[in-house]
Amino acid sequence: MAKPKYSHLSLSLFLIITITIITSSPPSLASRTSNFPSSRWAPRFLGKFSSSSPPKQPQPPKQQQQQPKIRYETRYFAQRLDHFSFSDSPRFQQRYLINTEHWVGPQRLGPIFFYCGNEGGIEWFAKNTGFVWEVAPQFGAMILFPEHRYYGESMPYGNKDEAYKNASTLSFLTAEQALADFAILITELKRNFSAEGCPVVLFGGSYGGMLAAWMRLKYPHIAIGALASSAPILQFEDIVPPETFYDIVSNDFRRESSSCFNTIKESWDALVTEGKKQNGLRQLTKTFHLCRELSSTDDLANWLDSAYSYLAMVNYPYAADFVMPLPGHPIREVCRKIDGCRDGTSTLERIFEGVSIFYNYTGQAKCFELEDDSDVGTDGWNWQACTEMVMPMSSSRHASMFQTYDFNLSSFQEECWKDYNAKPRPTWITTEFGGRDIKATLKSFGSNIIFSNGLLDPWSGGSVLQNVSETIVALVTEEGAHHIDLRFSKKEDPEWLVEQRATEIKLIQGWLEKFYQESKSNFDM
Amino acid sequence: MAKPKYSHLSLSLFLIITITIITSSPPSLASRTSNFPSSRWAPRFLGKFSSSSPPKQPQPPKQQQQQPKIRYETRYFAQRLDHFSFSDSPRFQQRYLINTEHWVGPQRLGPIFFYCGNEGGIEWFAKNTGFVWEVAPQFGAMILFPEHRYYGESMPYGNKDEAYKNASTLSFLTAEQALADFAILITELKRNFSAEGCPVVLFGGSYGGMLAAWMRLKYPHIAIGALASSAPILQFEDIVPPETFYDIVSNDFRRESSSCFNTIKESWDALVTEGKKQNGLRQLTKTFHLCRELSSTDDLANWLDSAYSYLAMVNYPYAADFVMPLPGHPIREVCRKIDGCRDGTSTLERIFEGVSIFYNYTGQAKCFELEDDSDVGTDGWNWQACTEMVMPMSSSRHASMFQTYDFNLSSFQEECWKDYNAKPRPTWITTEFGGRDIKATLKSFGSNIIFSNGLLDPWSGGSVLQNVSETIVALVTEEGAHHIDLRFSKKEDPEWLVEQRATEIKLIQGWLEKFYQESKSNFDM
Repeated sequence: MAKPKYSHLSLSLFLIITITIITSSPPSLASRTSNFPSSRWAPRFLGKFSSSSPPKQPQPPKQQQQQPKIRYETRYFAQRLDHFSFSDSPRFQQRYLINTEHWVGPQRLGPIFFYCGNEGGIEWFAKNTGFVWEVAPQFGAMILFPEHRYYGESMPYGNKDEAYKNASTLSFLTAEQALADFAILITELKRNFSAEGCPVVLFGGSYGGMLAAWMRLKYPHIAIGALASSAPILQFEDIVPPETFYDIVSNDFRRESSSCFNTIKESWDALVTEGKKQNGLRQLTKTFHLCRELSSTDDLANWLDSAYSYLAMVNYPYAADFVMPLPGHPIREVCRKIDGCRDGTSTLERIFEGVSIFYNYTGQAKCFELEDDSDVGTDGWNWQACTEMVMPMSSSRHASMFQTYDFNLSSFQEECWKDYNAKPRPTWITTEFGGRDIKATLKSFGSNIIFSNGLLDPWSGGSVLQNVSETIVALVTEEGAHHIDLRFSKKEDPEWLVEQRATEIKLIQGWLEKFYQESKSNFDM
Repeated sequence: MAKPKYSHLSLSLFLIITITIITSSPPSLASRTSNFPSSRWAPRFLGKFSSSSPPKQPQPPKQQQQQPKIRYETRYFAQRLDHFSFSDSPRFQQRYLINTEHWVGPQRLGPIFFYCGNEGGIEWFAKNTGFVWEVAPQFGAMILFPEHRYYGESMPYGNKDEAYKNASTLSFLTAEQALADFAILITELKRNFSAEGCPVVLFGGSYGGMLAAWMRLKYPHIAIGALASSAPILQFEDIVPPETFYDIVSNDFRRESSSCFNTIKESWDALVTEGKKQNGLRQLTKTFHLCRELSSTDDLANWLDSAYSYLAMVNYPYAADFVMPLPGHPIREVCRKIDGCRDGTSTLERIFEGVSIFYNYTGQAKCFELEDDSDVGTDGWNWQACTEMVMPMSSSRHASMFQTYDFNLSSFQEECWKDYNAKPRPTWITTEFGGRDIKATLKSFGSNIIFSNGLLDPWSGGSVLQNVSETIVALVTEEGAHHIDLRFSKKEDPEWLVEQRATEIKLIQGWLEKFYQESKSNFDM
């Protein structure tokens, strides 16, 4: 079987965002899912589309009302485009959100809670990181949500068109530059607030969690600790098996229903077979209610693959409208649909019923638009994946319900060159940030990092799941999905989630108490 | 009194090297001291001139014979010019010296001793870092001496003329890029030797010591520990008082003789007064045996200032020819000369007698050439000082024997702009590497660093002089000067130096033993 282009990439990582679903309300039938980040060749983190125009998601009014309010001021800071050379590069305006209303101020060494903005507009992350907003008041903390360069409004060269023009203008879109932005922003803001003595605590989820962990490791003088939620800092080179991600997605389905798992596993062949038939693509277009006629089964496979992967990430125990409106335990619901069709329903019809839970839970979509590739070059995460964030992804023969696929670095590199004139550096992240033998390295070096992960989350396999030392700890929840702990608390929160957050608060409290004790003893000296 | 341009800068740091002295042997009388790094506006580390043509130092034949032999192979590694962007920058050949003859190999996890090359040709550092060569065999260690980019043969753009052409070509001459060079070189070499499991121990003196400490902090996954000798990582912003350096130099003279100190302190006014007289500059030219007529007393003051500062750095207890041939306790000898002149000798004549110990111990120089400024733009350390290595230096009114001077950032920046079109970033190093509250930061974060310092060394005041934790320790010697511990052992070594080196060996042994224990337990698991 030909290796499908999609399977190592539709990873569509990390809880996307503005999946625009066709609803009956807009006049045009052509509202589409083209923003859906299927990322044919690279894993994704969430946030990519958060900064662009708000998604046209049909949302149940009740859930909208439940959304807690957050208050902040939006400010801008002039950042150097290149921190690591002294060439005459321009500056850009980095956006950041700030809230000081609960901050107890510099005299009392009020802490600063700093969210490491990831690949998207920062307002969306602020809205979806309720944990920080909920706990800041009890700590008397200032809240900062800085935006990651090249996302949202924080565009070098004045606007996105210029910033994303070519490999040269994009060349400063790296994690190291983003961390230096954070370090400088914190330092300058502290100076402005006369808050040099105030402790900073980092937060981040997904790629933002990776940034938080790396920031704590690289800038221990800037921040006293980091809560890195769902941060797959080990998903590089061969530190974890490349099959990890898809195996976990697959397992999330199998644990709900082995027949569901099997149906999905069989569906790829069914798809290809159908596609090869005369009028097969037309039939598939009908079966899957696509808005436009399908031109390749790969596109459809991508679309399905994305749905499964995202479902695994947002497999939350309660109804949520994080990515799109979904019921609680959405994989259970998908499998119920797949398994529950009346006898005689074809495999592909079952699949359609299943993924409709993901793409059309509200039932308002009339047809579906598959992703198109046209904006591949304007996607920041794709650039990052094509340069330093090279996360090899394969799909195993047996444990995976996806098509078998072996990550191929050469073809990955070719695609990156084609799309971006970018040359991936697959070994750079581990050289710069480490990852191999991470327990041994960090056991005697480093402190105050929480790696929180839910085992349902396919990214958990690339994160730190064991305690490293007394102060570098792993909080692992059996039933958790992608950085659920960072979300606003809800009355439906299961007990384990309530406990997890309480533990996080306690650990952060511990860091701060130790910091204050030491500040005091320094002061007393 | 007008603030002299020189006093905040002739820092002439860190054991210079190829001070070319006028001897009677070369045919031309014009052999000169023009290579002497007086650095009018920035502190210096040693090594600057080590890579250029060998110095014409008149050396006593006996001392030459004492120089122990070292053996290595010279190799080159193609490094990316810019590690922190994905622009299409060229590569350059980084030179490194390697010796594997005592290495016990990858099977036995033989350690790798890695010297962090600093601002000069690497061969000179290899020759002057005997400690590494002497201890490697007993550890079964491989020895690596990589050269710092933009120094020696490791020139971007093919040659020094191109590399030093302008601010744009020089823009990648930074400590962060150099550390990334090291990280990549180590990683690649380990891969080539199948030595991924072998522990790396870092060594460095002066700026190289700063690099070693920073490397351990930023790349703990690359190296298990660092011996950072005479590494003034706190000599930034206002972490230590800007008067520290000159106060220590001054104190080195006062402890030998308060009249010597006073004579020097008075000499600056005498110099200015003399210079203002009719024919005063001509008279000064005569008094100081200058090869060319003096055009400004500042130039002469610079020359004297440099001598005192270097003397403080190389104030070793035994005769040495590190920088130039000098007796043991050279400051004592200088002061003997200054104090010991017959009655009636003028202040300036005494000064000349004194600095002759430094500039002309062998007595072969017939006249002296003061530094000229013409090569300021081709000096790598000047560039570094004008960009990120901004070390404020002042001279205090009372404790210093130098002219009073207050560091002035604005005029410093103006000079950097004039010389290099470079804009200094005075707060960048502390943002990137820390430094403030270093004890608090590193107490719970980091391990396995030795900060070794001799209190006679004027750079010691900007280093870490107190133990931070059980594994981040300060080895301080009362009688030590600039990274004397890294030099080859000698039979004249005082007891404290023998002990200091033994302690260093013991600490390194401890790091390695712990590493092997943990490797074993990981292996056994």
